[in-house]
Amino acid sequence: MKAVTTQQMLEAGAEIILANTYHLFLQPGHEFVSRHGGLHKMIHWNRPLLTDSGGFQIFSLGHGGVANEIKGKCNCNRPKTLLKIDEGGAHFRSYVDGQRCYLTPEKSIEIQRGLGADLILTLDECTPFHAKKQHTEYSMERSHRWELRSFQEFERHSDGRQALYGIVQGGVYEDLRERSGHFVAEQEFFGQAIGGSLGETKEQMHDVVSMTCQYVCKTRPTHLLGIGGISDILNGVKNGIDTFDCVHPTRLARHGGALAHPDENDRKEYINLKNAQFSEDMRPIDENCSCYCCQNFSRAYIHYLFRAREMLGGQLLTIHNVTFMMRLAREIRSMIRNGNFSEKTHFRLPSQSK
Amino acid sequence: MKAVTTQQMLEAGAEIILANTYHLFLQPGHEFVSRHGGLHKMIHWNRPLLTDSGGFQIFSLGHGGVANEIKGKCNCNRPKTLLKIDEGGAHFRSYVDGQRCYLTPEKSIEIQRGLGADLILTLDECTPFHAKKQHTEYSMERSHRWELRSFQEFERHSDGRQALYGIVQGGVYEDLRERSGHFVAEQEFFGQAIGGSLGETKEQMHDVVSMTCQYVCKTRPTHLLGIGGISDILNGVKNGIDTFDCVHPTRLARHGGALAHPDENDRKEYINLKNAQFSEDMRPIDENCSCYCCQNFSRAYIHYLFRAREMLGGQLLTIHNVTFMMRLAREIRSMIRNGNFSEKTHFRLPSQSK
Repeated sequence: MKAVTTQQMLEAGAEIILANTYHLFLQPGHEFVSRHGGLHKMIHWNRPLLTDSGGFQIFSLGHGGVANEIKGKCNCNRPKTLLKIDEGGAHFRSYVDGQRCYLTPEKSIEIQRGLGADLILTLDECTPFHAKKQHTEYSMERSHRWELRSFQEFERHSDGRQALYGIVQGGVYEDLRERSGHFVAEQEFFGQAIGGSLGETKEQMHDVVSMTCQYVCKTRPTHLLGIGGISDILNGVKNGIDTFDCVHPTRLARHGGALAHPDENDRKEYINLKNAQFSEDMRPIDENCSCYCCQNFSRAYIHYLFRAREMLGGQLLTIHNVTFMMRLAREIRSMIRNGNFSEKTHFRLPSQSK
Repeated sequence: MKAVTTQQMLEAGAEIILANTYHLFLQPGHEFVSRHGGLHKMIHWNRPLLTDSGGFQIFSLGHGGVANEIKGKCNCNRPKTLLKIDEGGAHFRSYVDGQRCYLTPEKSIEIQRGLGADLILTLDECTPFHAKKQHTEYSMERSHRWELRSFQEFERHSDGRQALYGIVQGGVYEDLRERSGHFVAEQEFFGQAIGGSLGETKEQMHDVVSMTCQYVCKTRPTHLLGIGGISDILNGVKNGIDTFDCVHPTRLARHGGALAHPDENDRKEYINLKNAQFSEDMRPIDENCSCYCCQNFSRAYIHYLFRAREMLGGQLLTIHNVTFMMRLAREIRSMIRNGNFSEKTHFRLPSQSK
C-alpha cells in the first residue's frame, strides 16, 4: 500500500494488512513503532495485522531479487546487500544508511514483538529457485533450526496477544516438502506458511503448492507467502490455503493495471489503463464493482491521470484492486459454504454484493 | 490538489475547487472534459468549481515563472514556452507535446465553457513586477480590450449556468488600479478578480490589495488571484475580498509543511515536518484540529513518511492543510457576523468546531 490511507483501505473492505518487518526494522525501526504503542496505533488500523519475518526481503534484496528467483524469473540489477549467512543469522547492509545489520531468528521475533502485529512469522532462509537439491535440503534444515529458535524466543515473552506461524520449506522437492511439513506440524505453531521456491512456471507453482499442502497440519491456518494472482488463489484455496499476501494488486495499480477477470481463454487478469484503447472509454473499469473508483470515474479519466503522471490514478486503482481482491475472497468463501467451489469457476463480480 | 481524492477534499470541508484552464486545455483537452459531461462529473465534484482563464500559466511558464515575478521574487529556470503576444492573444508552445497553441479571449471562454465550471474568468495579460509603468499601462489597456471580447463571447452562448468574473489590472500604480477598477465595474460582470503584480514584498502586496479594493464594485463578489497565506487572507478580508485561490496549502503539504498559526511574533505560518525536531514528536500536528490526519497520526509518523519518501505523508498533510484553511474561513465568517473581525486576530483553531 502506497499513497492510500488505512481509512481508504478499510472502505475498500480490507480485513487484514501485512507489514514488512525488514523495511520497518531499517526505517523507522521497531523501537520507534513500539513507542507509538505498536503498528496498529501508528498507522491507525484497528483490524488484524500480519508481519513477515524479514527473511524474504533480506535474501531478495541480498541476491538482487529473490522474488524473481523464487518465481523462476531472471535476476534483476539491484545492488546486492546480503553480506553473509551463517548458522546464527543473516548479515546484511541497510539500504537506508549502509550500516551493517544482523538478523537472527531471535532478533526477528523481538522486532515483530515491537511492531505488535497479531500474526507473526518465524525467520527462515529463502532458497532461490536455481539452488540444487542438496543446497535446498541444507538450507531447509537450517530454516528448521531457526524456526525452533524463533519459537523458543517467542515463548519466552508470549503474553498471548500474538500468534506465531512456522514456515514450510523444501523447494520443489516432494520428499523435502514432506519432511518440512511434518517438522512444522510437530512444533506448537499457531499456523503454518508455505515458503521457499515454488518452481519456474505458474503450472509448476500450482503443482508444488498442491503437493506441499498434503503435508501440512490440516487443523491449523495455512498461509501461502507472496502469492496473489487470481488463478493462483483459486488453486491455493482448492488445496486448502486459507490466506495469501502479495504486493501484486497494489503495485499493479500504481502501474496502471486494474484487476478484472476477462474471458476464460484470456489468461491476463487485468486491464492496463495506460493503453491508448482506454483514452476515450467512458465506462467505469467494472460496471458491477461498487468501489469508489468504479462508482465515480471513467476509464478515460484514469487513463488521462496516468498520462499526466498524476498519482491519483494509482490511488484510485489501488482502491479498485483491493476492493476486487476482497470481493474475490468473499465470493470464494460463499462458494465454499455453498459446496460449489471450483478453481475453474469463472469468477464474475456480482453487482449487488458489497 | 494532487494524490488526494475529491471525496477526501469533501471530507476535509472543501467547498469550492479551482481548476486550471491552461493545464486542462493542453491535457486532456476541454473537448475530452466536455465528453465526460464537464469537470464536475469527470472528477466527481458536486460543489462549485472555478476555472481561471489560462492567462496566468501562459505568462508564468512563458517567462519562466511569472508567479515569482508578480510576487517580486527571482526568476526561476523553467524553459520559456511563451512565443509571442499580440492584440489577438498569446502564442505559446505546449509543454506536453511541443505543439504551437494560440489562446485568445474567445478561445479561453470556449475552453471554460467546455470545462463547465460555475465561475469563470476573462483572459488577461499578466504583467510582471519589473515592468515599467508605461508597459503596465499598455498591458492593462490590452487586458481591458481582451476582457470586453471575453464578455462578448461569454454572452453569445450564455445559458445562465456559468458566471463571469472580470479582472482588475494596473500593477502597483494607484491611478492605473483606479482606472482598471472603474473599467471592470462598468462592465456587466458577475464578479471581479484582482490580478497582476501586487508588489515586491508582503507589505507592499497588502498595500496594493488595500488600495485596489477601494476602486472595485462593492456589490459584486471580489476574488484575489493566487494569494493564500494566512496573514494575506486576513488582510484581504479586511479590505473586502470574498474569495482567494492558491496552491500554497496543498503544495506546502507535499513538501512537508503543515499549516499552523504559531506565536504572534513568529511570521512563519507552518511547521516543516521534515525537520529532525519532529522525529520523536508523538503529538498530532494540532491537538485542536478535527481532521483525519490530526485525529489519527503523530508528527513523528508523518516525519517518518517523508523520510521514507512515502507519498502518504503529503496526502495526510494535504488533508490537514485544506481542513485548516476551511476552518480559517469559517472562523473569519463567524468573526464578521459577530462584528469582531480583526486582521490582527490571533487565529486559534477551536477544538469543537468542525
